[in-house]
Amino acid sequence: MTTEASDTAADTAPDAAPPPEREALHVFDTTLRDGAQREGINLTVADKLAIARFLDEFGVGFIEGGWPGANPRDTEFFERARREIDFRHAKLVAFGATRKAGATAAGDPQVRALLDSGAPVVCVVAKSHDAHVAQALRTTLEENLAMVRDTVAHLREQGRRVFVDCEHFFDGYTANPEYAKEVVRTAYTAGAEVVVLCDTNGGMLPAQVQAVVRTVLADTGARLGIHAQDDTGCAVANTLAAVDGGATHVQCTANGYGERVGNANLFPVVAALELKYGRRVLPEGALKEMTRISHAIAEVVNLTPATHQPYVGISAFAHKAGLHASAIKVNPDLYQHIDPELVGNSMRMLVSDMAGRASVELKGKELGYDLSGSGNRELVGRIVERVKERELQGYTYEAADASFELLLRDEVQGRSRRFFRLEGWRTITDQRTDGTVANEAIVRLRVKGERIVAAGEGNGPVNALDRALRSGLERHFPQLARLQLVDYKVRILEGTQGTSSTTRVLVTTSDGTEEWSTVGVAGNVIAASWQALDDAYTYGLVRAGLEPSE
Amino acid sequence: MTTEASDTAADTAPDAAPPPEREALHVFDTTLRDGAQREGINLTVADKLAIARFLDEFGVGFIEGGWPGANPRDTEFFERARREIDFRHAKLVAFGATRKAGATAAGDPQVRALLDSGAPVVCVVAKSHDAHVAQALRTTLEENLAMVRDTVAHLREQGRRVFVDCEHFFDGYTANPEYAKEVVRTAYTAGAEVVVLCDTNGGMLPAQVQAVVRTVLADTGARLGIHAQDDTGCAVANTLAAVDGGATHVQCTANGYGERVGNANLFPVVAALELKYGRRVLPEGALKEMTRISHAIAEVVNLTPATHQPYVGISAFAHKAGLHASAIKVNPDLYQHIDPELVGNSMRMLVSDMAGRASVELKGKELGYDLSGSGNRELVGRIVERVKERELQGYTYEAADASFELLLRDEVQGRSRRFFRLEGWRTITDQRTDGTVANEAIVRLRVKGERIVAAGEGNGPVNALDRALRSGLERHFPQLARLQLVDYKVRILEGTQGTSSTTRVLVTTSDGTEEWSTVGVAGNVIAASWQALDDAYTYGLVRAGLEPSE
Repeated sequence: MTTEASDTAADTAPDAAPPPEREALHVFDTTLRDGAQREGINLTVADKLAIARFLDEFGVGFIEGGWPGANPRDTEFFERARREIDFRHAKLVAFGATRKAGATAAGDPQVRALLDSGAPVVCVVAKSHDAHVAQALRTTLEENLAMVRDTVAHLREQGRRVFVDCEHFFDGYTANPEYAKEVVRTAYTAGAEVVVLCDTNGGMLPAQVQAVVRTVLADTGARLGIHAQDDTGCAVANTLAAVDGGATHVQCTANGYGERVGNANLFPVVAALELKYGRRVLPEGALKEMTRISHAIAEVVNLTPATHQPYVGISAFAHKAGLHASAIKVNPDLYQHIDPELVGNSMRMLVSDMAGRASVELKGKELGYDLSGSGNRELVGRIVERVKERELQGYTYEAADASFELLLRDEVQGRSRRFFRLEGWRTITDQRTDGTVANEAIVRLRVKGERIVAAGEGNGPVNALDRALRSGLERHFPQLARLQLVDYKVRILEGTQGTSSTTRVLVTTSDGTEEWSTVGVAGNVIAASWQALDDAYTYGLVRAGLEPSE
Repeated sequence: MTTEASDTAADTAPDAAPPPEREALHVFDTTLRDGAQREGINLTVADKLAIARFLDEFGVGFIEGGWPGANPRDTEFFERARREIDFRHAKLVAFGATRKAGATAAGDPQVRALLDSGAPVVCVVAKSHDAHVAQALRTTLEENLAMVRDTVAHLREQGRRVFVDCEHFFDGYTANPEYAKEVVRTAYTAGAEVVVLCDTNGGMLPAQVQAVVRTVLADTGARLGIHAQDDTGCAVANTLAAVDGGATHVQCTANGYGERVGNANLFPVVAALELKYGRRVLPEGALKEMTRISHAIAEVVNLTPATHQPYVGISAFAHKAGLHASAIKVNPDLYQHIDPELVGNSMRMLVSDMAGRASVELKGKELGYDLSGSGNRELVGRIVERVKERELQGYTYEAADASFELLLRDEVQGRSRRFFRLEGWRTITDQRTDGTVANEAIVRLRVKGERIVAAGEGNGPVNALDRALRSGLERHFPQLARLQLVDYKVRILEGTQGTSSTTRVLVTTSDGTEEWSTVGVAGNVIAASWQALDDAYTYGLVRAGLEPSE
């Protein structure tokens, strides 16, 4: 097998301390190309550069950046990535197709654009399913082989490392195994370093993938890779099954983004290789950054990080069941498959209706309140009751730690203490004849015995309310100037019992070093937002070391 | 192997036309018990009854309803399920634990409650990991075996079918394989019909699962089941690997709901068994209901259906790539692993920045507009440009078919025609000193040359605006009375380039037979909602056969 460790002239990425397996087992990321096909994702060049930096920091071996020449955005990405990013771990890969039928590779402008991108590695997609050659490509089986041969040979002559993606390989192998294998042999013989078997339609299951990889490896001798789509819900397992079958190159996307259901998710694949297979595919210390990097990439693509994603989801190590919670106090390792800190995540106890006393005690401990011991039995019982009652109304403390801590403080102190009390508010939103929209809010507060009426304008009614509140409080609490709203979520909760719907608002606030979340529930989005803001500022002032007086 | 087909006296569910494999390969659903452990799920008894009806309609063999006696909600569920649901396909299962250490099964109130539930099947959880016996159960290995033996024997004597869940089986097998197998043997010998190997911490990979199942089957002769958690992202594959290894009972949850990352997802497991393995585990015709039932259960648990779920997600058969779109016109079967109609889903073409001309043409065809042919080249180009420009502003037509159709109509007709024109609106929301909140809205419209000013009150500012709009339009358009808002979603779009954030609102509207979605984008939630409402009513009136005049 050819596993070239030497780089081409176009490769400017020095590799200070490569992990031993970087070249032996390729981790190839295609978030920027195949991942961008996900419904709802629309990446700018700046987004692509930001994601490339995160992937390089995580330490994948290869980053497929897009299809230069196919659209101006991808062409610009390669140009700017070369200029602006000093890759420490990854090599940049340009994706493209084999030459057109009946032409030469050297004369094909699409192939030219791949070379012009300056990427040291090129990944060329080739047809390997006979029906696709005939119906989609509309050429002969022989010409398709010639297209693969010429394109790979030309790119190699120009000093590039070449990988070949065999599109629809598994379906093609089922329909015509000899032809599918012939495509692999042709690519490999022409100089492709890796031939990637793609389950493009995603219909495979692990046992099939492993058997096919094993057979193709034995029959062709080519170095093989795997590209799995998740249409059966088995993309991660299919990727690992291919490794079990002898593949030494895995193509994945961050958070499993991709067309239809998605691609094999980079994070559980890499975690399995590192933690379950014991293979060092990442630079030292990188696995600990996985949770942060997964969430950061979600932010760049403007999707909420998937809460239930393996390893990196905020729920991935969250325990709710009362049954477990009491046993976890004894020995947490009995209840988790890995130490969450290995992947930069952490164990959480959830406060909820089901959790019961043990969870509240553990959660209290996490927040710095010792609620154990028989002296606290009644108090813990009261907190459990209060949580149950509020959750019935639609509150959720699982996602609003700061609101839970305020509830807990109130119960510990035996009364609700606040920095300010609200008398009322009004918001007015107007769309005028010229189409412009104006938002005003008025709040009426009582602070340290003083009655305050304050007004604010904003780019929405909640923003106007926020500004009116700050304006009313700033003289008494200059600390509020540091607090910033960083996220705002609205959820309509349908009354499943025929009751009218309620609105739940979750607000995330930052003081520049830490973030906290608060919750509000009401029949009305503005009233719910008000409650969440009230908790957010109260908690922020408590964090700043102040004691409420009212 | 014991595979009792005869039911106990307590079982009142007649089985009109059982699929041949119902008893040979058990599909066991635990959404109501283990699935309810998911962070964010909180089920009422009515929710549980609704879900049980859907699961029975889908045709699973067994529905684990909860732990009667452990909490009043589950006790009530069993009581009401027996009275209110006429199960056509499924048998109800009560979940519980083995008897307490040092006591008798007959005298254990927890075991008594399982019998009192009236469920024909009982699933008993037992410890099979030696460290858990010592540290969590705090008893001896011998006493644990006696607890399993006594509990199973007692439940069998009382005429129940008994399954035993071996908790932490795979971790236990790794630590002490002989003891783990001894628990299986003990349960089976005492009369358990199936012994279920549970990957409670979810750390397994398919190859391991298959190997362990195969060995345990050979060494114990017990009928085996599998219960997989999804912490490695392989729960579906682990479940199928267990079947490959000889397991004949699979435990799953609808939509993969469950603690931490979740459980093996019922839908892709069943789809794989039916469509990939060719096993008939569901009643005739049930697989076609899968997408609807998946979404309905999500609605009951009050979670948005996962858009990228295998088989049933709205994105599962959605094609975006321009490259594919042009080839799909030739032969759709080359680009999907199954016909989406087999699972009640459908292929969709996405309109987006990346899709290009071929997708717009296909999408147009889907909506009844023939945009092919050279005469439409310029028109299609204009639509693609318009979509690009609007998506840059934050609109998303992928999720708002009705807004896209209005855009398409406008471009086909060369001008934007509407039923009414807006001059302006105002909303006022007030929280008074007594804490009550009031919402009012005023709209100023022009309809068929007439100027209309109308007002409305509602339980939120958008609801008030909606009512004001309806009140202003009802005389001209009585058809609006049939339209109902069925979903309302708000998303804050952060400007990743440092621009200020905008708000996107998606509204789903129903006329009783069909639903459609519309989108609005503005700096302000109310202004964005207004746009989405405007499109929603305009589209509804077009659907009702009216032609806009303005």
